[in-house]
Amino acid sequence: MKLKEIGEFGLIDRISPQFLRNLPAQMVGIGDDCAVIPFNKEESLLITTDMLIEDSHFLRDKIPPEDLGYKSLAVNLSDIAAMGGIPSDAFLSIGIPAEIEVEWLDLFFKGLGDLAKKSGTHLLGGDTTKSPRYLIINIVVVGKMPTDKIKYRSDAMPGDDVFLTGFIGSSGTGLKLLLEEKPVNKSGNTLINIHNRPRPHLAEGKWLAEKESVNAMIDVSDGIDSDLRRIMDKSHCGIDIDLKSLPVSDDMVSVCKQYGWNTHEIAAAAGEDYCLLCTINNQDSKHIMKEYRLEFGIDLYHIGKITENVSELNYFVDHKPVSPKEHGFDHFA
Amino acid sequence: MKLKEIGEFGLIDRISPQFLRNLPAQMVGIGDDCAVIPFNKEESLLITTDMLIEDSHFLRDKIPPEDLGYKSLAVNLSDIAAMGGIPSDAFLSIGIPAEIEVEWLDLFFKGLGDLAKKSGTHLLGGDTTKSPRYLIINIVVVGKMPTDKIKYRSDAMPGDDVFLTGFIGSSGTGLKLLLEEKPVNKSGNTLINIHNRPRPHLAEGKWLAEKESVNAMIDVSDGIDSDLRRIMDKSHCGIDIDLKSLPVSDDMVSVCKQYGWNTHEIAAAAGEDYCLLCTINNQDSKHIMKEYRLEFGIDLYHIGKITENVSELNYFVDHKPVSPKEHGFDHFA
Repeated sequence: MKLKEIGEFGLIDRISPQFLRNLPAQMVGIGDDCAVIPFNKEESLLITTDMLIEDSHFLRDKIPPEDLGYKSLAVNLSDIAAMGGIPSDAFLSIGIPAEIEVEWLDLFFKGLGDLAKKSGTHLLGGDTTKSPRYLIINIVVVGKMPTDKIKYRSDAMPGDDVFLTGFIGSSGTGLKLLLEEKPVNKSGNTLINIHNRPRPHLAEGKWLAEKESVNAMIDVSDGIDSDLRRIMDKSHCGIDIDLKSLPVSDDMVSVCKQYGWNTHEIAAAAGEDYCLLCTINNQDSKHIMKEYRLEFGIDLYHIGKITENVSELNYFVDHKPVSPKEHGFDHFA
Repeated sequence: MKLKEIGEFGLIDRISPQFLRNLPAQMVGIGDDCAVIPFNKEESLLITTDMLIEDSHFLRDKIPPEDLGYKSLAVNLSDIAAMGGIPSDAFLSIGIPAEIEVEWLDLFFKGLGDLAKKSGTHLLGGDTTKSPRYLIINIVVVGKMPTDKIKYRSDAMPGDDVFLTGFIGSSGTGLKLLLEEKPVNKSGNTLINIHNRPRPHLAEGKWLAEKESVNAMIDVSDGIDSDLRRIMDKSHCGIDIDLKSLPVSDDMVSVCKQYGWNTHEIAAAAGEDYCLLCTINNQDSKHIMKEYRLEFGIDLYHIGKITENVSELNYFVDHKPVSPKEHGFDHFA
């Protein structure tokens, strides 16, 4: 049987049970943004890892080495942010093909080092090795946080309001510009830069984790449709989303207009935005939106609500249900 | 500049300084078998990672999937053993080319799971992704241990006796049989099995770590000559080795005799034996050898001593210095 018949998630479902038996209390494995390992009465470690393979996850001629170093760490920091944690240490394994020059690597490490410094993450080690062809990057990040403040994907409650901490679709539009080799203006450059150097929402994640009424949290890595489904599956609930409320940037709107691209489609389907998606108890959500604006100077974007309709993700425009297909989402499946 | 001009260690030397500045006290990064992260007054975390890339580190048609799963975890557990730690959790990133079948992966995970269970290591997560061609495996293992018992490469003292916890060269001979596609008898099969399923010396490492007179420790992964040089460099000492005392198995001697291979050369230069190399204060070493034999039923092999001749690794046969070249070691450099 070929792997594509069961898919990545099918494989994870297939192997998880044998590994997750007999886990010690409070230890959380496969199935959230990070694994959680309690290490004393108050605190837990968060651990996450991501593998980036040339030609599968990035094209070496489309991303400057400094940006690739930055992004490789950023995507892992985003997983720490998604649970509300603070990153502390990182480990890099890198498989290097023979033709890569030392100067290229210097820039890669500069980009990685810049974000490590900015986020207070220590690069403590790893593995440097030859690769017969593709450049391969695996980063592990260890973070820590108070155990009782960790936010999971599985704690959304019917009635919760659903929020985003940033624009979506910018990264996807930037990638589309790169892949289709379109001429780019200032807006286009901004979007490409967002694709190449995503900002992990660490401060936002930590702030939200401190609020008791924030129930579920996840980062938007694979596209909001996929990530909403993860919340829905783990929390055994449904979600209603107001398509028009999905926050998109002026740069994205301008570029999509220029090339006749569907803004809503890219916003809902494209990935790698690395903002956070969270659900907040309806009683407290207005108050938190206000506090959030005071703290960060921008909005927490309200995009929908959690429902009791288990496994039903519904999109609305002006309160009328719309089928994803009509909006060009048929590649969601 | 091409990477091969400065080599893997050149690259590590080049990048380490910028990352290892301002590390918190007692935190140890790049440069030992594991990174050490203190997490409370008594205990530290040990973290290690290894990347295995098809055609660089293994040939998929020369190792059964179950063995590859087992070995991928074993090489990381060996790094934990090398500092005296106890493994607790593992994270796997795997890049899978399209042609690999689910049944192959089932066996890979069975092998990995068998060793995880045997060693008390929980596989808590990771990343499953597509690879455009080669199979790529990255494992991270987290262990823990009392901070004051951790053994480093850097603590060898002149006068120390040097020991090995097991045979060397068996794995290298097994690999040679595989690569040269020689017909194999029972001894050959034993050696191939040692190459494919190395046993991490966790119990031995933990036991040795509890002895105060054990000074430095490392695992023998790249061949004893390389690993001795690491001890020498980090401990600023010299080492005298009695070539004839290098412990080799009867199976290895028999296979080398069969094919006319140089036993000493393979023993000193071949890697992947994953036993431990340690240095013990001369005052206590006889006593520890005796206790070790009582505990494990086999010998702790005495192979040489630490000297004050900084950066001098000398080999002897019957107390006469021999040049490595004369013994066919000219590929050491």
